[in-house]
Amino acid sequence: MINFQTSPDKYHHWKLDINGAVATLSMDVSEDDTLNEGYKLKLNSYDLGVDLELADAIQRLRFEHPEVRAVVITSLKPRIFCAGANIYMLGTSSHAFKVNFCKFTNETRCALEDDSRHSGRRYIAALNGTASGGGYELAIACDEIYLVDDGNSAVSLPEVPLLGVLPGTGGLTRLVDKRKVRRDRADVFSTLAEGLKGKRAKEWGLINDTFPTSKFQESIDARVRDIVALGDQAERPVGIKLNPIDVEKSANALEYKYVTLTLHRDQRFADLTMRGPESRLQMSVEEIAQAGDSYWPLQAYRELDHALLHLRINEPEIGLVCLRTEGAVSNVVAVDQNLATHRDNWLVKEIILNMARVLRRLDLTAKSFFSIIEPGSCFAGNLLDLVLASDRSYMLNDPDREVEIVASEFNAGALPMANGLTRLQSRFLAEPERVDEVLKHTEPFDTEGAEEAGLVTFAPDDLDWEDEIRLAIEERTSLSPDALTGMEASLRFAGPETMDTKIFGRLTAWQNWIFQRPNAVGEHGALTNYGKPTKAVFDYKRT
Amino acid sequence: MINFQTSPDKYHHWKLDINGAVATLSMDVSEDDTLNEGYKLKLNSYDLGVDLELADAIQRLRFEHPEVRAVVITSLKPRIFCAGANIYMLGTSSHAFKVNFCKFTNETRCALEDDSRHSGRRYIAALNGTASGGGYELAIACDEIYLVDDGNSAVSLPEVPLLGVLPGTGGLTRLVDKRKVRRDRADVFSTLAEGLKGKRAKEWGLINDTFPTSKFQESIDARVRDIVALGDQAERPVGIKLNPIDVEKSANALEYKYVTLTLHRDQRFADLTMRGPESRLQMSVEEIAQAGDSYWPLQAYRELDHALLHLRINEPEIGLVCLRTEGAVSNVVAVDQNLATHRDNWLVKEIILNMARVLRRLDLTAKSFFSIIEPGSCFAGNLLDLVLASDRSYMLNDPDREVEIVASEFNAGALPMANGLTRLQSRFLAEPERVDEVLKHTEPFDTEGAEEAGLVTFAPDDLDWEDEIRLAIEERTSLSPDALTGMEASLRFAGPETMDTKIFGRLTAWQNWIFQRPNAVGEHGALTNYGKPTKAVFDYKRT
Repeated sequence: MINFQTSPDKYHHWKLDINGAVATLSMDVSEDDTLNEGYKLKLNSYDLGVDLELADAIQRLRFEHPEVRAVVITSLKPRIFCAGANIYMLGTSSHAFKVNFCKFTNETRCALEDDSRHSGRRYIAALNGTASGGGYELAIACDEIYLVDDGNSAVSLPEVPLLGVLPGTGGLTRLVDKRKVRRDRADVFSTLAEGLKGKRAKEWGLINDTFPTSKFQESIDARVRDIVALGDQAERPVGIKLNPIDVEKSANALEYKYVTLTLHRDQRFADLTMRGPESRLQMSVEEIAQAGDSYWPLQAYRELDHALLHLRINEPEIGLVCLRTEGAVSNVVAVDQNLATHRDNWLVKEIILNMARVLRRLDLTAKSFFSIIEPGSCFAGNLLDLVLASDRSYMLNDPDREVEIVASEFNAGALPMANGLTRLQSRFLAEPERVDEVLKHTEPFDTEGAEEAGLVTFAPDDLDWEDEIRLAIEERTSLSPDALTGMEASLRFAGPETMDTKIFGRLTAWQNWIFQRPNAVGEHGALTNYGKPTKAVFDYKRT
Repeated sequence: MINFQTSPDKYHHWKLDINGAVATLSMDVSEDDTLNEGYKLKLNSYDLGVDLELADAIQRLRFEHPEVRAVVITSLKPRIFCAGANIYMLGTSSHAFKVNFCKFTNETRCALEDDSRHSGRRYIAALNGTASGGGYELAIACDEIYLVDDGNSAVSLPEVPLLGVLPGTGGLTRLVDKRKVRRDRADVFSTLAEGLKGKRAKEWGLINDTFPTSKFQESIDARVRDIVALGDQAERPVGIKLNPIDVEKSANALEYKYVTLTLHRDQRFADLTMRGPESRLQMSVEEIAQAGDSYWPLQAYRELDHALLHLRINEPEIGLVCLRTEGAVSNVVAVDQNLATHRDNWLVKEIILNMARVLRRLDLTAKSFFSIIEPGSCFAGNLLDLVLASDRSYMLNDPDREVEIVASEFNAGALPMANGLTRLQSRFLAEPERVDEVLKHTEPFDTEGAEEAGLVTFAPDDLDWEDEIRLAIEERTSLSPDALTGMEASLRFAGPETMDTKIFGRLTAWQNWIFQRPNAVGEHGALTNYGKPTKAVFDYKRT
């Protein structure tokens, strides 16, 4: 079972130094500290364990070090920045693991960009050596890329020519959509195993600049000073501590403070219950800072995030997650109000952005989600987005036992999907006026009102409820898990596309396809034969 | 070798009736007239042969029957409109064929929508019986869908629940992006093997309306009359005839009037040469109509289209196509001017729209394209888009032998890519001002000018030319064909996404993935076991 929690004092592969407004995140991968057996992490290559630390570092920068304005990502190894995902790890991993690994590393890079976009921190890739494959993909997720000009170091995406697969961490998409490299140059670059060095790399827009070895560090330092000087000179806020998430694991359950995950493995589904806040407490920003990571919207969503990762990686046979909530609707609405009141405070902003990221992680999880809305539930405001993120929802219609859901201003834009829309907008593409109707309806919806407003899929009555839910679960978990994954990836993201949805939709799907092709993973495939004396043999039929 | 040419008098599966402004395209699939052996086309199910006729019919409506304002697509079989792609055909086809089959059927449906969008013809799906799978996907490509209410007939997408694959002809995308069906309802519908009948189907937006059997025909007729009455009452133009394309096939070549395709099968590449117009003749619309399908921009692009289909389906091992042109730059520019002058004429408009479709077919072809720009070539105006559509371009730099390329107003919007951008816009996402610079430069670019303007990838000199081209071809054709397909699909479509690019990028890639999964095509897979007494057995790991 993979553990997703770490902290800087436990890092094996990264070093996080904070120096005033500047953080330096240095990669120094420990060859033997691998997540699984059978490979060594040479040349700053990475596996999921390395990326979990990177994701942790970015998350901590946001919450623990709000004073940081510039983050330099570099390497402590000579002549190599990062060689990308470890090929032998990929070669020995199951298809499902490869896909989940790529998804997580993609989310990490999107989280880095999310930080840059919303929190104004600038990420500098200081490539003091070659950045190849995932190494360059990490660089291209940063805002600026500087490559040492030492006659040797290059940036490259050698996946196509060397491994017969795609750069799987957004590289191709970011090449043409973020850095807007001319497509013919992107084509040349992506088929050139050795990549490009400083001058040409700069001319083609692959890097921002290149500096000779002797001037590399000072040039980076100068750039960083400029960034810091440009930032606002207001007093630097003090961060909060992200403590480890307490989770009690038993054979069939994970128990957190606000989340319970119950696994029904023989039926291939899980119940994921979120508990709302205990009260309607309105807190000041000082009180929120003092509560820190125990403040409900931070703690509950961190727990949800952890549960989602656990489901993805450790529970592959669970195909369906029934989302449930417990608590008072009014308490959830109150916390939304509290957050909205203080949304300009840096910490509140980070808390909200984190909630949005966790919900996007849910959107991208290859499991079906059904929301089950029963008496005692609190699908309100931010938790209403669980209903809207679900593939379907079931709300009990029983005149004797009231069930209610309600929107808050949190459903109006605080929690955007990867396509840039709110989940209400995505839901009502055909009738956009319904979005406003729901948002203006400040009173809770009862079941009939919710159905009329188009907020729930089904509203069975008391007599049918148990049977209908049971049958829906049985039916869903009987279907082809692969077809469901492809179907959900198509239906969940209607409307506009963004770089993120392109990475998770188009690029990921192509990579998944290639990850199964004999030309990559067959006995004579390029991925299988990498580093062996044998050479790949291709079936040259174009498909 | 599959023949892509047909005409109404040769149709086995469709009947095309023209009655004034109304065309009726009736599906009546002949069970035994299959393209390959091993299956029967029961219940109006289709194979590539059936879809080639549909594509032909739509194309002929545009050119031969401009007087038609409404097209009714219906079935001559009782109780069934269309059962979709034939499952046994899919089950017995190679992966590559399945993928190519889906791509062509997708292009056909996009061509139907292109006709509706640009030529104002309205397509009515008159579902006089059940439309399932590809049958409903054909309906959803139409502008309006009417379903008979006979207590039995339904619309359905049973691919996920019955076959463990996706609806592969745009169904999922059009469901949420075109008809904007609520995503939870789309989820229910797409997992419901039996589909939905009239009332619910209408309520959910899956169809426009439903009529009882006794009133079905008259209701369709009434709707069609309305459409025709709404259209402009101007004099109806007279169509031109699309004659069969003359092509001489030899062992290693296809020879058309304006196109030559030379296959170097042992080196896995082909030369595709287009010859420009013979003169600078400026023709009146009457002369163009008289020239008909022998008018250069129509004939040359029809030939190119045919050659592309041939390459895709009949020459799977050809991985790279070298695009070449022969002729006078000024003649190509002159034909663009001629077309631009008369662009309001219905026929000229159709000719231009066809050129755009053929170039989009090229964009979507899973082969690499290199443009080879040498003395005597005429990559000008519309043919410059071949260079811009290529993954790379090579232009000879030899002071003694002049080579030139030039833009025309045709590069400014007449030939949009599937993402809605021109190929110049796609090329210069980083420097949009370059688009105007190229368009304003009415004089031809020599090699150095072209390089400076960013129009070509490489400009080797005379000494290096032969070697560089040879090495580039050798290198390209040595790479994994699957990785190249995924890479090109990612790099060719930077910028915005549309329903079309979603269908060809996101949905197609997921389908391709699923089409290889053991849960679909393995011994115990759902597609393999369809119609057999054995049941599918799934590996339930979610990926």
